[in-house]
Amino acid sequence: MDDAAQKRPRVVIIGAGFGGLAAAKALKKAPVEIEIIDRRNYHLFQPLLYQVATADLSPADIAWPIRGIFSGQPNVTVTMSEVTGIDLSNRQVITADGPVDYDHLIIATGADHSYFGNDGWAAHAPGLKRLVDATEIRRRVLTAFERAELADDPAEQTRQLTFAVVGGGPTGVEMAGAIAELANFTLARDFRRISSTDARVILIEAGPRLLAPFPPDLSAKAQRSLEGLGVEVWTDVKVQDITADGVETSRAYLPAATVVWGAGVAVKHLGDWLGVETDRSGRVGVASDLSVPDQPDVYVIGDAAKVAWKDGMDVPGIAPAAKQQGAFVARRIIDTVAGRKPRDQFTYRHAGNLATIGRHAAVIDFGKIKLSGFIAWAIWGVAHIYFLIGVRKPIMVALSWVWSYLTYAKGARLITGRPAPQISETPDDHTA
Amino acid sequence: MDDAAQKRPRVVIIGAGFGGLAAAKALKKAPVEIEIIDRRNYHLFQPLLYQVATADLSPADIAWPIRGIFSGQPNVTVTMSEVTGIDLSNRQVITADGPVDYDHLIIATGADHSYFGNDGWAAHAPGLKRLVDATEIRRRVLTAFERAELADDPAEQTRQLTFAVVGGGPTGVEMAGAIAELANFTLARDFRRISSTDARVILIEAGPRLLAPFPPDLSAKAQRSLEGLGVEVWTDVKVQDITADGVETSRAYLPAATVVWGAGVAVKHLGDWLGVETDRSGRVGVASDLSVPDQPDVYVIGDAAKVAWKDGMDVPGIAPAAKQQGAFVARRIIDTVAGRKPRDQFTYRHAGNLATIGRHAAVIDFGKIKLSGFIAWAIWGVAHIYFLIGVRKPIMVALSWVWSYLTYAKGARLITGRPAPQISETPDDHTA
Repeated sequence: MDDAAQKRPRVVIIGAGFGGLAAAKALKKAPVEIEIIDRRNYHLFQPLLYQVATADLSPADIAWPIRGIFSGQPNVTVTMSEVTGIDLSNRQVITADGPVDYDHLIIATGADHSYFGNDGWAAHAPGLKRLVDATEIRRRVLTAFERAELADDPAEQTRQLTFAVVGGGPTGVEMAGAIAELANFTLARDFRRISSTDARVILIEAGPRLLAPFPPDLSAKAQRSLEGLGVEVWTDVKVQDITADGVETSRAYLPAATVVWGAGVAVKHLGDWLGVETDRSGRVGVASDLSVPDQPDVYVIGDAAKVAWKDGMDVPGIAPAAKQQGAFVARRIIDTVAGRKPRDQFTYRHAGNLATIGRHAAVIDFGKIKLSGFIAWAIWGVAHIYFLIGVRKPIMVALSWVWSYLTYAKGARLITGRPAPQISETPDDHTA
Repeated sequence: MDDAAQKRPRVVIIGAGFGGLAAAKALKKAPVEIEIIDRRNYHLFQPLLYQVATADLSPADIAWPIRGIFSGQPNVTVTMSEVTGIDLSNRQVITADGPVDYDHLIIATGADHSYFGNDGWAAHAPGLKRLVDATEIRRRVLTAFERAELADDPAEQTRQLTFAVVGGGPTGVEMAGAIAELANFTLARDFRRISSTDARVILIEAGPRLLAPFPPDLSAKAQRSLEGLGVEVWTDVKVQDITADGVETSRAYLPAATVVWGAGVAVKHLGDWLGVETDRSGRVGVASDLSVPDQPDVYVIGDAAKVAWKDGMDVPGIAPAAKQQGAFVARRIIDTVAGRKPRDQFTYRHAGNLATIGRHAAVIDFGKIKLSGFIAWAIWGVAHIYFLIGVRKPIMVALSWVWSYLTYAKGARLITGRPAPQISETPDDHTA
């Protein structure tokens, strides 16, 4: 580092998700030194994580080395380390490898899944936020069919072939549809003692309908599409307990070997790090310029931030919102560094909601335009390929999809890794 | 299962490697019931495992669900379970899920890596036999560069950038070449505080030359190709100890954060299971018809078998040999079941030896024809794509290779999984 570089303002970004990457890219030509801190070496395209969990895609198809993304942007330094705190008075981020000085700090650590205080459920019902979650769910789903094939006891066989998905948001809807397709098509000819098509997939939602942020008619269409794939949709049903044997619900006890958690998210650590109040899910309420109260140089963006939107709603925790916030904060920093007055008001532009159900249907809510069925599915596919970074991955993912659309084969049907009874205790647990 | 099926002779195959698959496929039209027992749900294309370890390919690129391979062969049942013993007098294979009756038994469990009695080295120097080995090596290699980037102490930085590969056979040669390329090309622009091209890759071989089964001139060419990539080749150097800090050798102590083991293989359990003598590496000496002495219906094939070849040598432990043996044993069973006298003499047809060095060179020994350099590399690539099963994977692998040949990008550069200080204690340890 030369003297000039040392005098440039230091922008530290915690987290290389959608928000953090967008901020770093928008600062490409700015006269600043950027340091991105993440405890993983890759950016994860989370919206497709469920396809790793159901063996459609490989982990490497939806993850990019952060260093590779920025190899051509010399003002970015990448640090693979774990953030353990923030020292606001000394303007330092504390990491496992020592302190990192900042002039401007962008916190984009994202959210983890949350069990609403029932952390004991984590062992039995993995969520879907990290690659290790996806490969663990893949291992459990595929292993359940193997155990069913070998089970002598009919009740145990039924239990192994029962898949409970908790939470009727996009993650739950997509997981339930994908597991049903795995059972009905991909594995249909693979077993000799059982029929994989006997599998039951139950989607459990505490509220009155699936996809609550969507208009009711699209929720109903999503439910019908899922039911067409054989998924049982239980709405207005509360989960009371999850054990190694199954799920206790307000409707019935459900013996199930595989339970997937898609019901809630929470932000960890951030309130403690910043010494501020958070909402119930740990999000930090930020000012209209996305800065932390009384910390004009510290921003929180993406799923970790609580940002007011309209009609009493907050900006949703989706990738486009995080990207818009990353770009907004980068622009503020550019203006500040240049001595210009930065914009004070972040305005969220909502492009729409979309969710996919199996390989032939999706629901899309663009506000005025509502779509469902195959057309929606095609738009969903194009949108996701479009947003994949780079060139190689979209081609490979598109080929995987075309191939598996034509053949129902799933290339990534591997049971790997060790059984992990308590995966949220792994070091990979922290987002940043 | 109907009555006719129950009366058919039962062929049990332990292990879905090259030998086991070849036997099962050759029995496709035979009037037998086949049961394949493997503790994994996938067949692994082991010759390309080093490309997973060096982030060129994803695990799913080189692994196929066994059930998918046999979904169209109704006389095959696949059982995912762990074999714990063989009861020869009752003609049963003992598994974790109960006994399995056999009329004909084919043992194709393969070999594991071996530390020659120094099992404590396993924690510090993973071998390369299983997918979990490959992803663990990938994690260690990529993490070493990350630790070097963050190291304050120059000695520690050097240690993190030192990669020792033990064993000058094909695995060691391929690993050393691939790590050197990763450092010199793929990562060249990724770091800011270190230069990845400062990495040292040392290949340590106890004997006088690399690739001992090849003719000396090809060994010399392989060494020159590796040296051209910057690999230091230490021949006639014995490894005396491996710790978390580095490698003690007969030449010097080598501080190295990453050590890869490619020096030896051994067969586990088989002598105990069969109550027979084995050679030093645990292989079972079989008769000329590949049956176990005094057990005419029990065959051992592939890496687990010691089969005499010519000039005092044994049949080598490579995929073509295992496939030929699988087909031979299947033919014997077909003849036996049909009441014909089976052939008594397995004859091995050696196609040649090949090893690849980085992305531009290979050495091939076809006996009369010896090739090296780019032509050999092209033949190696075509041969490996040709032998990949199915259609989708070869296309995807070929695309990955073309892409990464053109760009030096490596798509699978992910650090996944938890640190595994003693990975050979995992349940994935047993081959079958």
